[in-house]
Amino acid sequence: MSKPRFITFEGIDGSGKSTQSRRFADHLRAQGEDIILTREPGGSPGAEEIRALLLTGDPDRWSPETEILLFTAARRDHLEKTIQPALAQGKTVISDRFADSTRVYQGATRGDLRGIVDSLHSLMIGREPDLTFIIDMDPQTALQRGLARKSGEDRFEEFGLGFQETLRHGFLALAHASPDRCVLIDGNRTPDQIASEIAAYA
Amino acid sequence: MSKPRFITFEGIDGSGKSTQSRRFADHLRAQGEDIILTREPGGSPGAEEIRALLLTGDPDRWSPETEILLFTAARRDHLEKTIQPALAQGKTVISDRFADSTRVYQGATRGDLRGIVDSLHSLMIGREPDLTFIIDMDPQTALQRGLARKSGEDRFEEFGLGFQETLRHGFLALAHASPDRCVLIDGNRTPDQIASEIAAYA
Repeated sequence: MSKPRFITFEGIDGSGKSTQSRRFADHLRAQGEDIILTREPGGSPGAEEIRALLLTGDPDRWSPETEILLFTAARRDHLEKTIQPALAQGKTVISDRFADSTRVYQGATRGDLRGIVDSLHSLMIGREPDLTFIIDMDPQTALQRGLARKSGEDRFEEFGLGFQETLRHGFLALAHASPDRCVLIDGNRTPDQIASEIAAYA
Repeated sequence: MSKPRFITFEGIDGSGKSTQSRRFADHLRAQGEDIILTREPGGSPGAEEIRALLLTGDPDRWSPETEILLFTAARRDHLEKTIQPALAQGKTVISDRFADSTRVYQGATRGDLRGIVDSLHSLMIGREPDLTFIIDMDPQTALQRGLARKSGEDRFEEFGLGFQETLRHGFLALAHASPDRCVLIDGNRTPDQIASEIAAYA
């Protein structure tokens, strides 16, 4: 396999994936790689504006179908304006969340919407990451961490523990279904232990 | 044919469709009908927020593909929150723009994106209006009118006259292709003359 250039971190809120994506970016930079560290929803000026619509306000603000469309719009902008230009310049792109999050958050939790998520992905996005770290973690601990942040972007955390447990199982199923690009990481350890395991993939 | 309950007005910016949709709503109300007058993009609180992203800012702010996704997201919200509940209560819905605008603005002007517009419509919207008035008008006059409004929502007008001419031909082709639901209206007349022709469809 050629060196992965488009790497994503996935997992439930509070699983530590933002910390680990930063640490992996720092690790690769220290080896001299040119890295773009980005995130979803967001990662480009337009997509960040869509992010604000998605992550604030009432939990029932959008139906799952509208939500999938907004996430796909943000992802398309992120792909065009940030990810593809960086890859074209030979950079490595690390993204905190990408399409797997939509597959799990919208496709596995509220109704059988996975078919819609997949159709929209084929039609408007197409691209998959070369390598995806899925950080698995106890949902109760992750939820407490996520809510403790008080970021104002709590719309998904407010769906509660049952929702987080469904998400966890969605991510596990995804890791199981795509072993060629997904690596399952045990997030119930210290950040140093986790970072050290991930660094082996540099 | 049963009485049309979902009626749309389409045409280029400045063609007078907002005026005519208001006048037709007033006309039907005077006959005792329960009318919801709405518009796109927008027509529900969430969709109005998406509208602000679409209609303000730099003309190149979004690629046509991202734009199609945002319009479809706004339309899905409008359909769920405003149009379908009103129709279910037996009301008549009149909308200033709907899916035909996306077919023409995004599907007929910049690249061959009509296939994407149609696929997204089938997947996420499905519903067509029962009756559509397409107001045809000289693009030069319409553009001057549109820009004279200085609404701050000028992103599409700023593409210029050639763009408005392409749009006009797109709407004419649409009227030709769907004669069962589309009525072509000559907009190069006084508002009273136009309203009087449309009133005959009450």
